Amino acid sequence: MSAPETLEGWFALHDLRRFDGAAWDRMPAPDREKAAAEARDLIADAEALTDGGIGLSITYEMVGHKADLMMIHLRPDMTQLHDLEQGFDRSMVGSCTSRVYSYLSVIEVSRHAAPQGTGSNVEDSPYIQARLYPELPENSRFVCFYPMSKRRQGDDNWYLLGGSERAELMRAHGRTGRRYAGKVTQVVTGSMGLDDWEWGVTLFSDDPLQFKKLVYEMRFDDVSARFAEFGPFFVGKRLVPEGVGRWFGG
Amino acid sequence: MSAPETLEGWFALHDLRRFDGAAWDRMPAPDREKAAAEARDLIADAEALTDGGIGLSITYEMVGHKADLMMIHLRPDMTQLHDLEQGFDRSMVGSCTSRVYSYLSVIEVSRHAAPQGTGSNVEDSPYIQARLYPELPENSRFVCFYPMSKRRQGDDNWYLLGGSERAELMRAHGRTGRRYAGKVTQVVTGSMGLDDWEWGVTLFSDDPLQFKKLVYEMRFDDVSARFAEFGPFFVGKRLVPEGVGRWFGG
Amino acid sequence: MSAPETLEGWFALHDLRRFDGAAWDRMPAPDREKAAAEARDLIADAEALTDGGIGLSITYEMVGHKADLMMIHLRPDMTQLHDLEQGFDRSMVGSCTSRVYSYLSVIEVSRHAAPQGTGSNVEDSPYIQARLYPELPENSRFVCFYPMSKRRQGDDNWYLLGGSERAELMRAHGRTGRRYAGKVTQVVTGSMGLDDWEWGVTLFSDDPLQFKKLVYEMRFDDVSARFAEFGPFFVGKRLVPEGVGRWFGG
Amino acid sequence: MSAPETLEGWFALHDLRRFDGAAWDRMPAPDREKAAAEARDLIADAEALTDGGIGLSITYEMVGHKADLMMIHLRPDMTQLHDLEQGFDRSMVGSCTSRVYSYLSVIEVSRHAAPQGTGSNVEDSPYIQARLYPELPENSRFVCFYPMSKRRQGDDNWYLLGGSERAELMRAHGRTGRRYAGKVTQVVTGSMGLDDWEWGVTLFSDDPLQFKKLVYEMRFDDVSARFAEFGPFFVGKRLVPEGVGRWFGG
Amino acid sequence: MSAPETLEGWFALHDLRRFDGAAWDRMPAPDREKAAAEARDLIADAEALTDGGIGLSITYEMVGHKADLMMIHLRPDMTQLHDLEQGFDRSMVGSCTSRVYSYLSVIEVSRHAAPQGTGSNVEDSPYIQARLYPELPENSRFVCFYPMSKRRQGDDNWYLLGGSERAELMRAHGRTGRRYAGKVTQVVTGSMGLDDWEWGVTLFSDDPLQFKKLVYEMRFDDVSARFAEFGPFFVGKRLVPEGVGRWFGG
Repeated sequence: MSAPETLEGWFALHDLRRFDGAAWDRMPAPDREKAAAEARDLIADAEALTDGGIGLSITYEMVGHKADLMMIHLRPDMTQLHDLEQGFDRSMVGSCTSRVYSYLSVIEVSRHAAPQGTGSNVEDSPYIQARLYPELPENSRFVCFYPMSKRRQGDDNWYLLGGSERAELMRAHGRTGRRYAGKVTQVVTGSMGLDDWEWGVTLFSDDPLQFKKLVYEMRFDDVSARFAEFGPFFVGKRLVPEGVGRWFGG
Repeated sequence: MSAPETLEGWFALHDLRRFDGAAWDRMPAPDREKAAAEARDLIADAEALTDGGIGLSITYEMVGHKADLMMIHLRPDMTQLHDLEQGFDRSMVGSCTSRVYSYLSVIEVSRHAAPQGTGSNVEDSPYIQARLYPELPENSRFVCFYPMSKRRQGDDNWYLLGGSERAELMRAHGRTGRRYAGKVTQVVTGSMGLDDWEWGVTLFSDDPLQFKKLVYEMRFDDVSARFAEFGPFFVGKRLVPEGVGRWFGG
Repeated sequence: MSAPETLEGWFALHDLRRFDGAAWDRMPAPDREKAAAEARDLIADAEALTDGGIGLSITYEMVGHKADLMMIHLRPDMTQLHDLEQGFDRSMVGSCTSRVYSYLSVIEVSRHAAPQGTGSNVEDSPYIQARLYPELPENSRFVCFYPMSKRRQGDDNWYLLGGSERAELMRAHGRTGRRYAGKVTQVVTGSMGLDDWEWGVTLFSDDPLQFKKLVYEMRFDDVSARFAEFGPFFVGKRLVPEGVGRWFGG
Repeated sequence: MSAPETLEGWFALHDLRRFDGAAWDRMPAPDREKAAAEARDLIADAEALTDGGIGLSITYEMVGHKADLMMIHLRPDMTQLHDLEQGFDRSMVGSCTSRVYSYLSVIEVSRHAAPQGTGSNVEDSPYIQARLYPELPENSRFVCFYPMSKRRQGDDNWYLLGGSERAELMRAHGRTGRRYAGKVTQVVTGSMGLDDWEWGVTLFSDDPLQFKKLVYEMRFDDVSARFAEFGPFFVGKRLVPEGVGRWFGG
Repeated sequence: MSAPETLEGWFALHDLRRFDGAAWDRMPAPDREKAAAEARDLIADAEALTDGGIGLSITYEMVGHKADLMMIHLRPDMTQLHDLEQGFDRSMVGSCTSRVYSYLSVIEVSRHAAPQGTGSNVEDSPYIQARLYPELPENSRFVCFYPMSKRRQGDDNWYLLGGSERAELMRAHGRTGRRYAGKVTQVVTGSMGLDDWEWGVTLFSDDPLQFKKLVYEMRFDDVSARFAEFGPFFVGKRLVPEGVGRWFGG
């Protein structure tokens, strides 16, 4: 069985952290002010690409106990992701946050995703380029991130299906997704060889109810019903750089 | 297979916390008094909706090691849930509690749940409105909360059943539930795309034995026997706002 | 499939704690003495039912890393269980112990367990009453506690069996248990709707080898071989109230 | 299906601990010296049975992050195991170690393991006695410990096999084991009713490569291939009592 | 079913650690400088084999929350691995790092891997020797490590396949791997009897996208699709000894 061809764009790091209020309170007040300003600058610089690099960064405050903060970084080189993660970790607020989850992946687009008639240089088509190096809807109020894998279990083994059967199942799945065009933006990143699940799914919307509607509807697609295994779901709301200082209480 | 249509009401956050007695004891006595009063006010304000908002909040002290406190918040906007969670977390008692579990979901009612003859505007029927924006039995002495999913495993795959088979199984399940009318109040919230399981079930009763009777009886319904996967069960007793100060030892 | 009828007696809380020796050592010596005396009094009072209530309490020191102390409380009202748990947690030794496990359940007897010829008021028969409100063998030297569920998996789904098949399997299982009469006392508590497994099994014996013999032999009963899923096993030895002060090093 | 008859010898506790270097460093230097000497004495006394008891104790320093120290104790009475565990836990080094794993079991020999012609008093045969109350190869340089269970899953259910089929599978397995005679010593302990897996396997060898060779070869025996479920594997090297003081840095 | 013959080379320890920035910050500045220099020397000595031993050591800084540092050590004797681990653990930086994962294994080559015509002394062939005692591509910028097992589940039981079927499946798998020659270097270590999974896979590349491409393509090989179970994936970038001091902030 040969693997379907994929194209890859930016590397992605989802960096999820918990805020340690007790550690923060132990910091002297002037240090807290400096620490909050430093965190704000780090996040603002990452989002504004002030180092002249390319890519995208975007930050969320999370709902529920699983994490308090999620920074999503997209960059051409994995080293840059590591530098951003380490830079935050070793800043003054670093010891007041702990990394409770992270996800390393790379934007992935199926070669078959290109529109008909694209010709042989699929990767050069504007459609594919826009998906490999996307603009994230940074003004969307809410985000949902979850990792997932395709099932390999008894008769429900995705990787033993024929290529055309897999393609047909994915097309039906795609049709469900497209019904949410304009309401939910979806970015799929591949993570085999990079992290514990096979893909990461990141959804952006102004209305978090659409996350539920979309995932619920897809669950009845055969590809999800029979073949999807889901990791944890993380939901949050946009935290713009100007809000970071206040968020840290600075 | 198309997904059954659902209607959604308030968003729900179950916020479960453990009390850290050692951290509390390290706080100076006057601070403890202020912290307990602040916690009482936060909880009383949330329950009384003193901000003029709509929704419901209700608080429980939990039995067993899994959590000590559970606050259930229902609000129209997910941002409000986040504000309530963060407000408590950043209050003086915040560093004396840790969030050990949480559950993010939204009240969900099947469009088919409406009584016959409701007409086309199902969502406007008083019956459906009362389920989407329920009054919780805040005087019930006990609560039971657990998340669950429908199984997708080999021959027992809920999402591959036909719609009429699913409907029939749910009707039988509903009949079991109705035998507990007057003894147990049940609120079902949907959490696909929002949290790790597919639904949350919250039961209210003056008699915790009814939680056992109801769940036990339902386990023999085909829909539970073949298709239900259960998460952790949390059981607690009502903690009214006037009791919060004492609960924190203030 | 209708559920078998059950009768319920006292609620049960298994409260398992780890002792934090470092926290204990940090306490000033006079406080340690007071704390140990307070713990001894709390446990002695619970066991002696000095509040005039009814029920039973019994305490064990545990073998292995999973827990150091297990208090089993049986009471008619779940609120009493919560009060006992919270009273210990908020005593001076509370911050030197952490609750590492707990189990909330209720003593359960099948209506069919009554001897033949009991008549219609099964629950009033002395035999059933003695099982619903049992005397625990408080002088037994050892205890074994484990939670368990019945399997619902593919062809091995307990809840899809016919009632007579389930009854026959349970009868064979009961015969194995009765061979240990006089050597092992067994109390079964139901926990659906109350905790994460479906039942708790508590065994008492003067000879811990009998725990192994009994569980080993039962594993070959069809009901265990095909249908039992087991949680963690906890084993301990009796800690009488007079020994509690010394146990805490007071 | 009736259970095969087994004979039991000494109870066994595998006590696995992590060393907390930071806690150790916080101890004043003279205390550290006293603590290390006390730990050495506790371990030397246990190994030398200076209390006049019978049994065996043997200590290892472990490789990898799962544990730093493993003490194996064999004694006729479970109370003695508890005393040894608690004695170490409450010694001065106790607060510099945490118990990260433990395993409670009892040496088990199948009644059928006796050589032909042993007669009716199988348990009195010298062969069986030597296996129930073994001498451990205390000079072997390396140890491997892992718990395991027999599978009860679909068509691969060990406990539903006929007795003669089980016996044949075990005989083949035994032949594999005997090919390692002289290179690996194996002690099997039963833990149903005592701990979370069904058996513990402890291997001793001067050459840790033999652990890999033995377990690898056995994996292809039908009894392992179809029926074995494995817990964590712990590997360590012998720490003689004279080395304990240095190990703790005393 | 007899086990395929394998040859073994050096033992391997993957030692993964998290850096505790708060503990580091609490250290006095002069101590931090000494600690960083000591860590640099330990790592430089291990990599340079300054003790005159043989083997290989190589260090990475990791991406994501699972670990911050990974040291891979290859040595002929497991005791040397333990000494390296313990030496680092008990150095000044030891209390500022915690071991969050580790993996103990031994380099393994199938006897059938030797080229045709090697003759009877397979283990002496230069090809096999170079695989048993490999030179790691220490200048490769990135590493990927993950443990895995072969599935033993229902009809998908690797250990019940015939030897020739297993060999054919592995050959196809090998062909996929060879397509990455020059782009990815792969070292396979066996860990049955030594750690919790059956094998460790360590990949080296200058381009981390190749990890994804290789693992993705292999997932469609029957041997992975039907039989592979994967543990956690760890990805990092090379940290040369000269960089260690700076990495610790010294």
